Amino acid sequence: MDIGEVAKRLAEAGQSHLLQFWDELSPEEQADLILDLESMDLREINSFFKSAMQVSSHSSEKVDARMEPVPREVLGSVTRDREHLMTWEKEGLLQISQNKVAVLLLAGGQGTRLGVPYPKGMYDVGLPSRKTLFQIQAERILRLQELAEQKHQTKCCIPWYIMTSGRTMDTTKDFFSKHNYFGLNKENVIFFQQGMLPAMDFKGKIIMEAKGKISMAPDGNGGLYKALGSQKIVDDMEYRGIAFVHVYCVDNILVKVADPTFIGFCVQKGADCGAKVVEKTNPTEAVGVVCKVDGRYQVVEYSEITLATAEKRSADGRLVFNAGNVANHFFTVPFLKDVVNIYEPRLQHHVAQKKIPYVDTQGQLVKPDKPNGIKMEKFVFDIFQFAKTFVVYEVLREDEFSPLKNADSQDGKDNPTTARHALMSLHHRWVLNAGGHFVDENGTRIPAIPREYGRHYRCSLFLYCSLKDGTDLPIKCEISPLISYAGEGLENLMRDFEFRPTLVVDEKGFHELVKNGV
Amino acid sequence: MDIGEVAKRLAEAGQSHLLQFWDELSPEEQADLILDLESMDLREINSFFKSAMQVSSHSSEKVDARMEPVPREVLGSVTRDREHLMTWEKEGLLQISQNKVAVLLLAGGQGTRLGVPYPKGMYDVGLPSRKTLFQIQAERILRLQELAEQKHQTKCCIPWYIMTSGRTMDTTKDFFSKHNYFGLNKENVIFFQQGMLPAMDFKGKIIMEAKGKISMAPDGNGGLYKALGSQKIVDDMEYRGIAFVHVYCVDNILVKVADPTFIGFCVQKGADCGAKVVEKTNPTEAVGVVCKVDGRYQVVEYSEITLATAEKRSADGRLVFNAGNVANHFFTVPFLKDVVNIYEPRLQHHVAQKKIPYVDTQGQLVKPDKPNGIKMEKFVFDIFQFAKTFVVYEVLREDEFSPLKNADSQDGKDNPTTARHALMSLHHRWVLNAGGHFVDENGTRIPAIPREYGRHYRCSLFLYCSLKDGTDLPIKCEISPLISYAGEGLENLMRDFEFRPTLVVDEKGFHELVKNGV
Repeated sequence: MDIGEVAKRLAEAGQSHLLQFWDELSPEEQADLILDLESMDLREINSFFKSAMQVSSHSSEKVDARMEPVPREVLGSVTRDREHLMTWEKEGLLQISQNKVAVLLLAGGQGTRLGVPYPKGMYDVGLPSRKTLFQIQAERILRLQELAEQKHQTKCCIPWYIMTSGRTMDTTKDFFSKHNYFGLNKENVIFFQQGMLPAMDFKGKIIMEAKGKISMAPDGNGGLYKALGSQKIVDDMEYRGIAFVHVYCVDNILVKVADPTFIGFCVQKGADCGAKVVEKTNPTEAVGVVCKVDGRYQVVEYSEITLATAEKRSADGRLVFNAGNVANHFFTVPFLKDVVNIYEPRLQHHVAQKKIPYVDTQGQLVKPDKPNGIKMEKFVFDIFQFAKTFVVYEVLREDEFSPLKNADSQDGKDNPTTARHALMSLHHRWVLNAGGHFVDENGTRIPAIPREYGRHYRCSLFLYCSLKDGTDLPIKCEISPLISYAGEGLENLMRDFEFRPTLVVDEKGFHELVKNGV
Repeated sequence: MDIGEVAKRLAEAGQSHLLQFWDELSPEEQADLILDLESMDLREINSFFKSAMQVSSHSSEKVDARMEPVPREVLGSVTRDREHLMTWEKEGLLQISQNKVAVLLLAGGQGTRLGVPYPKGMYDVGLPSRKTLFQIQAERILRLQELAEQKHQTKCCIPWYIMTSGRTMDTTKDFFSKHNYFGLNKENVIFFQQGMLPAMDFKGKIIMEAKGKISMAPDGNGGLYKALGSQKIVDDMEYRGIAFVHVYCVDNILVKVADPTFIGFCVQKGADCGAKVVEKTNPTEAVGVVCKVDGRYQVVEYSEITLATAEKRSADGRLVFNAGNVANHFFTVPFLKDVVNIYEPRLQHHVAQKKIPYVDTQGQLVKPDKPNGIKMEKFVFDIFQFAKTFVVYEVLREDEFSPLKNADSQDGKDNPTTARHALMSLHHRWVLNAGGHFVDENGTRIPAIPREYGRHYRCSLFLYCSLKDGTDLPIKCEISPLISYAGEGLENLMRDFEFRPTLVVDEKGFHELVKNGV
């Protein structure tokens, strides 16, 4: 396509300003710009903008009045339905053993807030093993395959679909091949890429971040569905005979990939769509809640509700809207297929107002101090409303959810330290429940809930000297996913053993490391 | 008493080594040492040691098997008994208006773990007002007196008993007089001092920290009861006509001193002893739990139970042992009198093994790297077992409990930042519930649960850029206790007002400060 043709299309779309610096560009810059422009469907982008702006102009209305909580009958709970857990897990392992289950990782995010220039999955939170999030997840898949194979005496495989963005694709792929796919078969790790959309100003003009460069951003984690179609991922799933998909985010260090209990629960409930949640216990916790609005399931973002609604409680004292979304979802492949073909195109983009650097008419780069434009995004949970049978599965935060969002900070929220502690605390509990014990440097047993573990509620008079004496806690303990997926199979290894932290258990055996000051 | 007399008594008590460096001491050092020795009841100390060691030799047995949870009928809950809260508060305010209520502060702790050399109550967590914990508590007392007076058209007063230790008495007193008792009447702020006990080695020999100096430590927050008697505090309470006492620890920035609802609840239940608790939701949280052991109420420390017990859950999904002790207690004065005269002497000391610096026989100071001796302590909750009618009152953590224990750290537990955020978050909710709103620098309203408030559960694809755009949160908002004790009385001031953080509301009115980077 030549420049004239492009210019014509831009003019029709009211985006001619994208060529305003054309004559100042080097031939290479011109070529790149043409390439970018050709790949963009301007008519579509303009229509996205119109409808997105329409929606967002209403979205200031609070949905409070139309919200209903998740009814008990669609809820499965690890704490309230303990008698069913075994059955659900059995079902899940059966499906896995029959190669019917795949996992899908949303990994398009960069570690910007974490303060690193590479994809989050490549982050090492400082565990004794120094494993990255990608490696931990890969090894959980390997172990789970093994468990299903042992139980059903068949080889099986859990394909791993990994959605990256334009920004993270190459680094992610290189990282995996450099590490031999962490022991997985290359052909069962499928990378695909979500779309990008240009940033636009409030009038619908596409924003340029340089004279020859359009400001682009990923189209939200809901971009998943468009990508599933455009890159033939659903076809690949069907080709492989996959029936159920577990979709999750890269940043939760405790994530139970392809959690057989969750999958078994959804399968036995005949659900086409399910969400894993943790109980929201503090009204001002910044968590979206799964609920019904006008009779249809969706995630209502914390920013959309009033404090009064957030603080509502049932007679039993729990928050009424307490199904905290943790971006862990179950879908059947037929449902995904309908989403791709029928529902996704109906979804409007959400508008996020941002401060977007742009070049002004003089060609000067301007960094605005107020929002000057929008990014358009869809969310992975936007499709809940289309489910025929929707279910919710409530799990324990301390066992399954510790997201890595921020760099280390004083208020200790969702940072490398909290992630590392969450994993080591879980593994510490695995050891204790397997009948093992930890001893301090003097050989005396450390209590199950050691001092300095978490909060102290005893008065300072007693405590003011305890830091000096307290062991360095949480107990440093890491068990390789290759040894245990969820604490299983440790009794024989550990019953009545005594360990000194740092304890590392992996395929090479037990290691008691000297304190590594982590 | 002359040195010969002292030496004789030391010999009888098997503590002659305390004089081993006598001849090397200066006259002043000799005088001080004599003074210390005279003030010690060596026979008593030796007997404390014997019985304490006996108890602790058994205390390794887990109490799990003998534990029962708090029965519902003795439990009052702000979330499950909402219909009664007004009545209880009314009762509490009535008692306060009749001068029947006092508060008692346990403030013997030093800020060692906090990294400051002065008493914790003098700590400023960095609020916009820069108020210290002492000032915040004093102003809550002032406001509560005012509320009771308004309601019942009488002047009234809530005496404030403050227990310090030998280490903190003078600094604390000076601080209060320097600040004119923060507006309270001097004669209604009563300081007293808990006892000290010498540190002893495992053989029962008193440890010397210098050639002429005995290693002394406060006798635990349970030292309260001995001090109540020896320093005639109970007599003072009776003299003032006090009937009910609220005992609490200095380090909880959210503490509701003399909480009328808590007091009213205890009074209407006819309790002689009550404990305020928060729900323990994570099994490995390091919190003691209020429960029954062999049919008697007590606080079982987290270090005393197995993980299996800590993880036990009821059919409703809650932890079975979830009454987390927050060192907030209610006592009737008659009960305290019995404790002082009858029960306290029966209480054995708990043994805390410590690394205690000591001078060896050569007179060299040694800093041991393993525990080499013990400190003997009683705990404030040791007397629950003697209560005739014991009740438990469950409150919301986010409203009432955020202790200051540690210096700022990466895992953000109980430090100045978490304390500051907890208070500002509470006051932010007060403003919203009073009908006020916050707007950002662009004048747009900030949602009730703003971005960056707490955890993010939405996926990184959406979030990786939100730090840049998120307002600096939690909303910076501080309302003087002189204006509101628990959120009351703000409607008229705030309904439909819009505020820009940092908002400070105090007796001088509203102030919107420029961001102070806190």
